Amino acid sequence: MLTLNVPLGSRSYPIHIGAGLLTRAELIAEKLPQKRAVIITNSTIAPLYLAPLQRALEGRGVGIVPITLPDGESYKSWDTLNQILDALIEHRCERGTALIALGGGVIGDLAGFAAAVYQRGVPYVQVPTTLLAQVDSAVGGKTAINHPRGKNMVGAFYQPLAVVSDTDTLASLPPRELAAGLAEIVKYGVIRDSSFFGWLEANMGRLARREPEALAYAIERSCANKAEVVALDERESGPRALLNFGHTFGHAIETATGYGAWLHGEAVAAGMLLAARLSQRLGLVGNEDVRRLAAVLKEAGLPLAPPALGVERYLELMGHDKKVEGGRMRFILLKRIGEAFVSGEVPRAALAEVLGAGEAHARV
Amino acid sequence: MLTLNVPLGSRSYPIHIGAGLLTRAELIAEKLPQKRAVIITNSTIAPLYLAPLQRALEGRGVGIVPITLPDGESYKSWDTLNQILDALIEHRCERGTALIALGGGVIGDLAGFAAAVYQRGVPYVQVPTTLLAQVDSAVGGKTAINHPRGKNMVGAFYQPLAVVSDTDTLASLPPRELAAGLAEIVKYGVIRDSSFFGWLEANMGRLARREPEALAYAIERSCANKAEVVALDERESGPRALLNFGHTFGHAIETATGYGAWLHGEAVAAGMLLAARLSQRLGLVGNEDVRRLAAVLKEAGLPLAPPALGVERYLELMGHDKKVEGGRMRFILLKRIGEAFVSGEVPRAALAEVLGAGEAHARV
Repeated sequence: MLTLNVPLGSRSYPIHIGAGLLTRAELIAEKLPQKRAVIITNSTIAPLYLAPLQRALEGRGVGIVPITLPDGESYKSWDTLNQILDALIEHRCERGTALIALGGGVIGDLAGFAAAVYQRGVPYVQVPTTLLAQVDSAVGGKTAINHPRGKNMVGAFYQPLAVVSDTDTLASLPPRELAAGLAEIVKYGVIRDSSFFGWLEANMGRLARREPEALAYAIERSCANKAEVVALDERESGPRALLNFGHTFGHAIETATGYGAWLHGEAVAAGMLLAARLSQRLGLVGNEDVRRLAAVLKEAGLPLAPPALGVERYLELMGHDKKVEGGRMRFILLKRIGEAFVSGEVPRAALAEVLGAGEAHARV
Repeated sequence: MLTLNVPLGSRSYPIHIGAGLLTRAELIAEKLPQKRAVIITNSTIAPLYLAPLQRALEGRGVGIVPITLPDGESYKSWDTLNQILDALIEHRCERGTALIALGGGVIGDLAGFAAAVYQRGVPYVQVPTTLLAQVDSAVGGKTAINHPRGKNMVGAFYQPLAVVSDTDTLASLPPRELAAGLAEIVKYGVIRDSSFFGWLEANMGRLARREPEALAYAIERSCANKAEVVALDERESGPRALLNFGHTFGHAIETATGYGAWLHGEAVAAGMLLAARLSQRLGLVGNEDVRRLAAVLKEAGLPLAPPALGVERYLELMGHDKKVEGGRMRFILLKRIGEAFVSGEVPRAALAEVLGAGEAHARV
């Protein structure tokens, strides 16, 4: 087992990564203020991992209330949040009762946001079971639900007590979801860690084949990158924005196609390539770096071509994004593999050209 | 104008108290990260104070979006919160767009919670127009909405950029609401400031007659007491609990009778007297102190008799309160006027006796 620390003063917390951690209940139990916890999971994950986690915690004297929700991004909604809050009240959960998020990013965001607002804040623990959640959403304290008009429009910055990532749970992951997680892993290399990007180019085949050692290394390196950025900028006023590389385009794709049609990581992959192409049109990054990015995403099994929504629809959707400031869109652009930066200086013509060429990207 | 500081490190903020502050727009404008703000108010307050505040801010170049909600505690709900969030998205509000809460406690709690969760947090300013909000809810960063099964069950600790309390707005306050504010003022004297309590005994008549100087003094002294407690304990894990003196009983009264039938301050007044009587039954406080409390509340025009709900119903409602810990109810009890403390040691018999004597309290 490997343990990283996210250094946030009184809100610091550990991330544990390794095989067999689901039943290492002491990692969670020792953090709980009360011998009672609510496990929030979904109908896909529950049959696989709920019983072992619950039994392990009960073995340490922790009383468990399980809440099983339907599976899918479309349930990251007000209605589901309300279901969770109703259940917490129903079971008379108190300020010291912890929530444990067992599942992927949707469960983590929902349970984390429920923890942030129930009785003005109760403790929570992340037990991510997807690659995407293990390298991204479970780390950093961002919680949210979607709004019909925009993704993650309602939420909170709220840090967990601990993150426990059992790499064994990745064995059951559908191939598309594995690839979606790989997209975020690639992102860390692209925006700030060129040596890691080089490692990914050499080892993407091992990751796609789910070799446990390669996965553990990639998760650890991703979390270390993310923890560094989050520690610099917990509330996303500066450097943390770089983590959104490809996400402004990606969110537009997700919103336009309805949540769930494109997986988040898939939309981010297509979005990263759009951002790289935009950087290329602006003369900021060379062709070779764009080619390297496209190649590694392709080897991960990710889609490279964004849907042809039309330029106007893209611009309208991106105008709703949280990265808008003073009415002006900000973009995260690329200087080279390993170095991204924030820019508000993107001529509309270049943007329209890149977005309008949507169809052509399939041929990269 | 008097200015107090709430010292919370990077989240510190000023409280301005005085006459004519509604049009002193620089107090707000200088705090805004962006020349754009949303004023959230209700249909009672809007005709009185929206235009002057909006005009003053626009005079300083701040673009204003007004949102007017229906008036009443029953609107402190999911539905109204959603209306606010929808409007913020509709108007393309950004992370730098501030919300300004213009109204009483309901508006402050709603707008504050909307600010806490919209795009994971936007800045907000409190402009309280009721005595209760000026001495209590606008200070300390507690935001929330109600749940059918419990008051303030969903919310966040989220600090404003500033609080601007214009004492002129109290002239239009209905008498019951003035009295409800006086209940919270009395609370500060009872729990931690016996000299202020003595001043209140001598000056309650002046407050009830709304003498501006007396009101300004009482508001300042109340805010100073609250700011001290909040600075010690922002997230209510310790000393801040004392501010809930009378509130566990009070919330039960509000929930049982439907939000709005009893004003919050009225329920707190009856609740404080129940807590004092409970302390008396337990031999903690003398008869004379209970008599003094009852007398000053009566002079403020507050109801002293709680509704006769029956002991079982009271206990059930109080079990849902946020002050429950480890399945055990905690009570805030009185040692003497000016000194309250938290206790988990209340025999059920004493509690039942005090609650069962409900009807008799009318004769105090």
